Amino acid sequence: MLLKSFIEVHPDSHFPIQNLPYGVFNREPGSEPRPGVAIGDYVLDLSVVASAGLFDGPYLRNSDCFYQACFLFFPIFVRASDLNPNLNKLLELGRPAWKEARITLQKLLSAAEPILRDNASLREKALVPMGKVQMLLPIAIGDYSDFFASKHHAKNCGVIFRGPENPINPNWFHIPIAYHGRASSVVISGTDIIRPRGQGHPAGNSSPYFGPSRKLDFELEMATVVGPGNELGKPVDVNEAADHIFGLVLMNDWSARDVQAWEYVPLGPFLGKSFGTTLSPWIVTLDALEQFSLDAPEQNPPPLPYLAEKKSKNYDIALQVSIIPAGQKDAHVVTRSNFKHLYWTITQQLAHQTINGCNLRPGDLLGTGTISGPEPDSYGCLLELTWNGQNPLSLGGTSRTFLEDGDEVIFTGCCKGDDYYVGFGKCSGKILPSPP
Amino acid sequence: MLLKSFIEVHPDSHFPIQNLPYGVFNREPGSEPRPGVAIGDYVLDLSVVASAGLFDGPYLRNSDCFYQACFLFFPIFVRASDLNPNLNKLLELGRPAWKEARITLQKLLSAAEPILRDNASLREKALVPMGKVQMLLPIAIGDYSDFFASKHHAKNCGVIFRGPENPINPNWFHIPIAYHGRASSVVISGTDIIRPRGQGHPAGNSSPYFGPSRKLDFELEMATVVGPGNELGKPVDVNEAADHIFGLVLMNDWSARDVQAWEYVPLGPFLGKSFGTTLSPWIVTLDALEQFSLDAPEQNPPPLPYLAEKKSKNYDIALQVSIIPAGQKDAHVVTRSNFKHLYWTITQQLAHQTINGCNLRPGDLLGTGTISGPEPDSYGCLLELTWNGQNPLSLGGTSRTFLEDGDEVIFTGCCKGDDYYVGFGKCSGKILPSPP
Repeated sequence: MLLKSFIEVHPDSHFPIQNLPYGVFNREPGSEPRPGVAIGDYVLDLSVVASAGLFDGPYLRNSDCFYQACFLFFPIFVRASDLNPNLNKLLELGRPAWKEARITLQKLLSAAEPILRDNASLREKALVPMGKVQMLLPIAIGDYSDFFASKHHAKNCGVIFRGPENPINPNWFHIPIAYHGRASSVVISGTDIIRPRGQGHPAGNSSPYFGPSRKLDFELEMATVVGPGNELGKPVDVNEAADHIFGLVLMNDWSARDVQAWEYVPLGPFLGKSFGTTLSPWIVTLDALEQFSLDAPEQNPPPLPYLAEKKSKNYDIALQVSIIPAGQKDAHVVTRSNFKHLYWTITQQLAHQTINGCNLRPGDLLGTGTISGPEPDSYGCLLELTWNGQNPLSLGGTSRTFLEDGDEVIFTGCCKGDDYYVGFGKCSGKILPSPP
Repeated sequence: MLLKSFIEVHPDSHFPIQNLPYGVFNREPGSEPRPGVAIGDYVLDLSVVASAGLFDGPYLRNSDCFYQACFLFFPIFVRASDLNPNLNKLLELGRPAWKEARITLQKLLSAAEPILRDNASLREKALVPMGKVQMLLPIAIGDYSDFFASKHHAKNCGVIFRGPENPINPNWFHIPIAYHGRASSVVISGTDIIRPRGQGHPAGNSSPYFGPSRKLDFELEMATVVGPGNELGKPVDVNEAADHIFGLVLMNDWSARDVQAWEYVPLGPFLGKSFGTTLSPWIVTLDALEQFSLDAPEQNPPPLPYLAEKKSKNYDIALQVSIIPAGQKDAHVVTRSNFKHLYWTITQQLAHQTINGCNLRPGDLLGTGTISGPEPDSYGCLLELTWNGQNPLSLGGTSRTFLEDGDEVIFTGCCKGDDYYVGFGKCSGKILPSPP
């Protein structure tokens, strides 16, 4: 029988009781950040649940990972700024604690359970209408890496920049290629993105162009949120990598293509990416995604032993990008892709990241890279969709090669169950003009 | 008249009263980390100085940046793990506070000042013999970037990998090229480095090599420790960049050349670098280095306006790398270089990093890249010194192309004043074998 909550959840909602994604929110601007899970049109305040003693299993009973409980005991002596306003402590606890939290919360929210359902005062404290909260970055990100795991994306970029002969570098088929990204400029959905200034390719022998980027792009990605880390020098086995993954978010790896093209030889992307990266606010757990797993694409040549998985899984997550062009009101879908198109799995990415002994820490972020599908209407960025500006996209009476000031870009992602969705909400950002 | 301390400082010491570099230390393993400055063969415990009320200027009087003072008031309610065991709060305060601290400490330690000199009980508490302490990583590093700012290094790498025609990419003369590094694996001097495993170039059509790196190298670098940051979207002016720099450390950016060569196209170095990066424990402040500043090399073509400095400064810091080969006792000098050889200055590096709006945070690290001089005996890594293994180095009866297990690599750096040195101490690490 289908698990149901006593809270009414619209059939189209991304947040039924089967999902319960984690985020961090403010009840009002400037108030204490607190952890929550999304349920229908509400956020369940986990600090209230913890304070009420309802996390009573062995892993969470004595944990301060929902920290407001701790705050209640030391209201004077511990300053708010010393508290950890993120989910990192929960991430560190690992899958047994996460499973315990999921079981506790699904029971607490289920239609049959009276504890919260029948306690009006507790409900009032614990359930906050989603429309009233401000979502915050849910994790403190130590390091952020970004992979290049879609074969369609790698191929399209190769053809655009180097032509159709051997568009994919030979190393790509052996290595989940990645670069280190910038953690400081990762922002939460809804944060405006200021168009970066930078250098672009010089024409002939002139000096390089300098000014606002002329080729500002989005990149449709998802990202792995790392749970327990590993010790420096001790790689994670690919078949145990899933135990180090808490969940996934949507990610827009905004890119200034002109800056990137001029700077990236020989050390890779730098300022073309580091001006901003947007995350969706809700982390959907691997446990919630499990029922939507499917076989990853076959890999040929076969991966080296350290990347060979007993079972190589992707997830069936439908992804969509819309743009609200500057000055307009309606969103226009510009691409539809799916997480299942990734060639290198998130567990291979994580194992590769550590094979040299590199240590991961709770809250690290591993981006997938742009998730392009095989068809032209499933490409994951404007570089591919407009073929580097050659084929403008029509959008509600206007057109785009790259993003213009005032454009808003909206990602959504969700899995379709039999009677419900398990979704990620949205990941959006609007382009503001460069400073003068 | 030369400023003198009541503490006897050997003329060869790196740590006279003119230096006063900052670090973080343990009095014994597992005890509370605390901030200190080096003076001769002692560490001055700044938490003791702060607790005694001796930081009495306007910027530091009410600051908890030397945090043990704060800890004394709340010994029960604040857990040690919630305190900030690093210098980040001091970094955030900016140059006026740093200057105040320097004036306070130079006065406190001077031969003429009785407060500490004549108080045996306070001296006993505040001054710890350097031989008895364990030095710790002094900063929490949010993001670590690594530049490529030595022209000699860029040229040598170009000749080795692409041949003598146009060895330096055209973008290099316009852009302080850099990549994002891995913050999690930055370690303090003295930490062993485990030889990374990884993929190396396949021979012909075979699968890539996988195993312990066969081309493990050091890179002689220094790194800027960032003080106050900047807001996302608001670049730092190059002529104000020095106000965002607390000081410098020595840095060994260990590199697996075979891994790097196979992985780096098109997204740059990743696992070839991320297995470990070693910092020297003492941060020498820009204020202490100021008297050793000199004009940076002329830049031709002239830099774009956002990189054009009113005064372009380097520092005259003599750098040296020694190796103690496995099984031996003596260190052999393998190169002598100097910070003054850098083409792009640290202020240009910092301004470039932010020109796209990227935000810096206190404790961020900006590596210079390998600091090679013009002569073959001043090259900053084995790749250059042995010309990619073609010309082995002789070392005390043995020879090296790249590093072997058991080798210890030691960097030192110092500025020569009229009657004293201002130095960085050492930055060392020993290579341990790969896990089986």
